[in-house]
Amino acid sequence: MTNPYAYAKTNQDRFLTEYQELLRIRTISTQPQHADDVARAAEWLQAMMLRIGMDSADVILMPEGRCPLVLGEWRGAGEDAPTILIYCHYDVQPAEIVDGWDTEPFEPTIKAGRLYCRGAVDSKLHVMANLKALESWLAAEDKPKVNIKVVLEGEEESGSENINAFVEKHPERLAADIAVISDGAILAPDQPSLTYGLRGVTAFELRVSAPVSDLHSGHWGGSVHNPIQALCEIIARLHDENGAVSVPGFYDDVAAVTAQDRTLLEKVEPFMQDEWDSVVNAPALWGESEYSLPERLGARPTLEINGIHGGYTGAGMKTVLPASAFAKVTCRLVPHQDPDRVLNCIVEHIKNITPDTIKVDFQFGGMGAEAVLLDVEGSAMSAAAAAYTYAWGVEPVFERAGGSVPITFECMKVAQEVVIMSYGLKSGRAHGPNENIYLQNFYNGIQSTIKFIDVVGEGRR
Amino acid sequence: MTNPYAYAKTNQDRFLTEYQELLRIRTISTQPQHADDVARAAEWLQAMMLRIGMDSADVILMPEGRCPLVLGEWRGAGEDAPTILIYCHYDVQPAEIVDGWDTEPFEPTIKAGRLYCRGAVDSKLHVMANLKALESWLAAEDKPKVNIKVVLEGEEESGSENINAFVEKHPERLAADIAVISDGAILAPDQPSLTYGLRGVTAFELRVSAPVSDLHSGHWGGSVHNPIQALCEIIARLHDENGAVSVPGFYDDVAAVTAQDRTLLEKVEPFMQDEWDSVVNAPALWGESEYSLPERLGARPTLEINGIHGGYTGAGMKTVLPASAFAKVTCRLVPHQDPDRVLNCIVEHIKNITPDTIKVDFQFGGMGAEAVLLDVEGSAMSAAAAAYTYAWGVEPVFERAGGSVPITFECMKVAQEVVIMSYGLKSGRAHGPNENIYLQNFYNGIQSTIKFIDVVGEGRR
Repeated sequence: MTNPYAYAKTNQDRFLTEYQELLRIRTISTQPQHADDVARAAEWLQAMMLRIGMDSADVILMPEGRCPLVLGEWRGAGEDAPTILIYCHYDVQPAEIVDGWDTEPFEPTIKAGRLYCRGAVDSKLHVMANLKALESWLAAEDKPKVNIKVVLEGEEESGSENINAFVEKHPERLAADIAVISDGAILAPDQPSLTYGLRGVTAFELRVSAPVSDLHSGHWGGSVHNPIQALCEIIARLHDENGAVSVPGFYDDVAAVTAQDRTLLEKVEPFMQDEWDSVVNAPALWGESEYSLPERLGARPTLEINGIHGGYTGAGMKTVLPASAFAKVTCRLVPHQDPDRVLNCIVEHIKNITPDTIKVDFQFGGMGAEAVLLDVEGSAMSAAAAAYTYAWGVEPVFERAGGSVPITFECMKVAQEVVIMSYGLKSGRAHGPNENIYLQNFYNGIQSTIKFIDVVGEGRR
Repeated sequence: MTNPYAYAKTNQDRFLTEYQELLRIRTISTQPQHADDVARAAEWLQAMMLRIGMDSADVILMPEGRCPLVLGEWRGAGEDAPTILIYCHYDVQPAEIVDGWDTEPFEPTIKAGRLYCRGAVDSKLHVMANLKALESWLAAEDKPKVNIKVVLEGEEESGSENINAFVEKHPERLAADIAVISDGAILAPDQPSLTYGLRGVTAFELRVSAPVSDLHSGHWGGSVHNPIQALCEIIARLHDENGAVSVPGFYDDVAAVTAQDRTLLEKVEPFMQDEWDSVVNAPALWGESEYSLPERLGARPTLEINGIHGGYTGAGMKTVLPASAFAKVTCRLVPHQDPDRVLNCIVEHIKNITPDTIKVDFQFGGMGAEAVLLDVEGSAMSAAAAAYTYAWGVEPVFERAGGSVPITFECMKVAQEVVIMSYGLKSGRAHGPNENIYLQNFYNGIQSTIKFIDVVGEGRR
């Protein structure tokens, strides 16, 4: 008599082999030369969905984007049963061995209980943990008491145009009672965590110009406001000495950190601090002193300079006084900040502090997403907590993540409840060299998804 | 009966052709891949010196540097005659068409009486105007009444290590009664000017770092002092609101602007302002309000940011919180500022204002030169004034240049008098795209050098 939990344990070696097979496909969505690899992975995933017993599996090519969606459905619980939508993405960031990898980035390598490969954490781990949980359910005697939809995205790492357009046009295809965003990281190998908040994001580029062309800094220096200097002077007036953003209106709509937030996030702090010490390891912690580290990272908005350039930056010196300089800026947002309103405040502030010796220009149209706050006491969150507790043997803590997962906002349009279930690790070097995952997290993730389906099905019977 | 003035006029078309030939050689001393081009130009110049009748011409390779000196001599005036040393440089700044050139940067292009090419002003103009003046003298019946030395430098744009070391070791090779530094620019095509002061220069690079590696700005933003922001905050504290440098001690040794300076520089102001309006054309004039434009440019020191870089600066956005950011800085110095003392003041100030959330590192070893002030009433300056008056039909005005010509300081060691004779134009976009020169300035320059040799020879007879 197989049950899904036992089936997953019995088949865990094969599951690992299949996970490695997917990892070898170079699904780099940001590089057009890998479009064929992305398409091949989509077909591989479609075939797997059909093989494990889904009722249907479509590879959906959208004119708006380049990378196919893979959409699978199992309707065996019947029309009256609730539906769970599971979202994961199978595309990855670029990786080259010269970036600092100790092993070939697309050859899965197991060392001391960890699997090293691009995508091992972000996010083929989640694709495979969820598909293998479904396989275990569909191979078991007792079938799931919930219907299942799975949507696998192929361009999360390059803008998600495709899936956003698809949700817009065909909300019924993804409609569900509960959407599970399966992406991201838990706090530590032995400490599962549930993310109940995500920051939003908005972006702009600021260009400062003064002279009509690059000048000789000897000939003209002292008579013209150097655009690099002027840009720095503006940037220096975007934060106060306490690390707070000093743009009037920036914090107007910010949801206050509640007593519940404080209680929940206190439990997260030691894990975060350990992580900060090993990953960040700057000379000192920085930021708004009246907020704890997890609060600064999850519950407070930021204004971050992601890039700056002006003048000559090659080897040696060039005595140039450049015509212009620019900076790329993103803001992480919290509830209930409106991305456009925040941008307006910043533009207004910068215009107000711009001296008459320079010109400023803004460029918009980059990323934009509102922050997300999920109900910690909702039924989906409770089911997820039960699932983690079962799989890890430890109750999860609740955290608010600093990053943005724009798909969460899209899923809130098609599902009554949304929950984020992450099986990766913050120390897993997503986007960096030597990306890796503890194999145990993969196996725990499978058990966790099995349990989640179980709990939701029991609850809704 | 040829005289040098007539010879130059008769041969002016050929002189132009030869000038264009030299311009085509990519003598970019800052880029190692152009070392062969620099060497080829040196041989070309040596051959020309011998062809026009110099007694000797050596290409001198020094172990200290990469770029050959070309040193020519004509001793026909006899041992008792005075010696004039003419200095020019034949290396140029980098140039790429993508920098904003309307024509190929190394293909001389004539449009509406102007010649466009990298090096057209800075400083192959001077190399060729002087060599063609000498050719005209040596081809004439009456030979010069002064001995001539010519030294052509191949690494003025990249630190002048070579020539400085050469002067140090072999001062006798360049010993002269009068050294003519032929480089730089006059005020306007129809208004010659003589430079009686040059600013010095010193340089450093400042790097700010905080986290141990690049971070995801969503995951960690709000908890770490962004190195770009911190660098901007430091740079914003290097000037006050009046445009003065706000580094304690920076102005300690600065020679005051005298009544003579004010009188001489007043005459220059309208030309400078015209030039500023056309070349700089920033939204507004900037700088120390209690000093006139020519005073700000020639008689006051500056601190200029020549380049800045940090994080992601390509197309689109990348949500990176970079590990470090850097800026390249030069200071223009006036008498009697010591380059090392100025650097020390800046380093001290930056260390004092650096918060404990970041690390700062400095890199030195770029350019360094003291400022120069020449005798407006000396005999060499008088001969130069007569030469310009003859060639242009207009008396020169006297100015202090904002740039640095480090060789001037070296020449003061080997010559009794130094004079700077410039034939370029401030509007000629030295170091920028579309560098250009009025052809008439080239022809006037040839006549001017011929006359200078004439006047010095007559005066010393």
